[in-house]
Amino acid sequence: MEIIRNPQDMQDQALKWRAAGQRIVLVPTMGFFHQGHLSLMEYGRKVGDCLVVSLFVNPTQFGPQEDLAQYPRDFDRDCELAQQIGVDVLFVPEAESMYPPGYQTYVTVEEVTQGLCGACRPTHFRGVTTVVLKLFNLVQPQIAVFGEKDYQQLITIQRLVVDLNLPLAVVGRPIVREADGLAMSSRNLYLNPTERQTALCLYRAGQAAQKLVAGGEVARERIMAVVQQLLNHSPETIIDYMALVDPSTLAEIDTVRGAARLALAVRIGQTRLIDNFLLEESRS
Amino acid sequence: MEIIRNPQDMQDQALKWRAAGQRIVLVPTMGFFHQGHLSLMEYGRKVGDCLVVSLFVNPTQFGPQEDLAQYPRDFDRDCELAQQIGVDVLFVPEAESMYPPGYQTYVTVEEVTQGLCGACRPTHFRGVTTVVLKLFNLVQPQIAVFGEKDYQQLITIQRLVVDLNLPLAVVGRPIVREADGLAMSSRNLYLNPTERQTALCLYRAGQAAQKLVAGGEVARERIMAVVQQLLNHSPETIIDYMALVDPSTLAEIDTVRGAARLALAVRIGQTRLIDNFLLEESRS
Repeated sequence: MEIIRNPQDMQDQALKWRAAGQRIVLVPTMGFFHQGHLSLMEYGRKVGDCLVVSLFVNPTQFGPQEDLAQYPRDFDRDCELAQQIGVDVLFVPEAESMYPPGYQTYVTVEEVTQGLCGACRPTHFRGVTTVVLKLFNLVQPQIAVFGEKDYQQLITIQRLVVDLNLPLAVVGRPIVREADGLAMSSRNLYLNPTERQTALCLYRAGQAAQKLVAGGEVARERIMAVVQQLLNHSPETIIDYMALVDPSTLAEIDTVRGAARLALAVRIGQTRLIDNFLLEESRS
Repeated sequence: MEIIRNPQDMQDQALKWRAAGQRIVLVPTMGFFHQGHLSLMEYGRKVGDCLVVSLFVNPTQFGPQEDLAQYPRDFDRDCELAQQIGVDVLFVPEAESMYPPGYQTYVTVEEVTQGLCGACRPTHFRGVTTVVLKLFNLVQPQIAVFGEKDYQQLITIQRLVVDLNLPLAVVGRPIVREADGLAMSSRNLYLNPTERQTALCLYRAGQAAQKLVAGGEVARERIMAVVQQLLNHSPETIIDYMALVDPSTLAEIDTVRGAARLALAVRIGQTRLIDNFLLEESRS
């Protein structure tokens, strides 16, 4: 596995691969790999000739009050894990080379970023779409792989790619969960043992909603009453949002028709956790 | 010469060329070709294997009070001229295929678009950078050619390409002028004979400024006094702006050090005209 730090070197390598007819897959990450990241890499290894994993804790997607400085890092362990999976290039740019002096260009996807996390984190998605577009241009992938854990991010990137006519496919892969159902996240590290137990409320709420809809319930009001009760089970949980949305536009819906996405964000102590669930009417 | 209207067909063709190792040149235009456009195409013909000219009167770069509806068009003549130069593909998308329902992504270059035309036309450059990025993704050029007539646009696109790590070169080509010095523009068509004479004030002001600076004048105040006097020569001229700027940042300067750009925009009757001039200290 090669480690590339210089953006120009990364692009030179990518253009060489493209000229040789290779199929490039990119998995963009902020590092501190868990099984969720590894599942994206394993998928990427299967579908492409050249697998690039980017590791960049992108400052422009963190708000001024957020956890940029303490975001967990373990570069040596990340290298080892990526190598084991057969990653070809780990691309690890410095912030200074991604945003040199004079930098002034930003990309916004306007509608799908308005609600959910976009409402709580006003500049977050502008930071995400801008850095992802830069990574696409540097790595030149035909396929880019994202986790469904960050569901609004996935939908936003898919919209970016369609709207800007980028010649690549954005693939979303299923959430990987701990044995007890907590969605894997680098931020789970912040939870103390009590909070770790409390954090299960997200999975419980999602499962309850899935069961309701599978059983024929379609009314937002009744689904969300159950979700809210389960999220509020512990007094130290603060709900950032709980939303029942159209899976592709992310617009709030009143009635489930076929399928919907339940999107949840809660704060437990100092830690903000998100999760989401596909709710499907039973087809029987 | 092939005429392609469908964006996906354009991209398929471009990716085939790239896979075959061809060097693609793009000249983006809004049509109604004059000698200025043709000089960009002639340059493109020389430096590339495959020459694509896009012809798209992009609605998102016109303000609500501007001349989108009456912008001059002559498709048959444009086809003939492009064919004579040896253009390979004339890419003529419809607005509906560039901005289909649900479209919501925009690119902004923040600093270099603030002054000059950006100050008078607040959403203009957002429209330009977004459509140009889409064209780059559809046509996949290694070289894109723009005229220096739209100098702020050229600088903005160069910034876009550097900031977003696009693997292509943006080439600016000199302004082509009528025999009497008026910069060629599709909008010159709007001028009646009296206005056409009045329009020469731009060239006269630019020449006077060039002469002053070549002769050793470096003070903004004295250069701009002469420029203003020449622009105000006719009572029907309204100055939108007259600016002495750094050639790459477009920041206003007080003293010419080496080189500066004089950027002018005036309204003559209903017509808005722009022009710009490189001012260089004499090296003797």
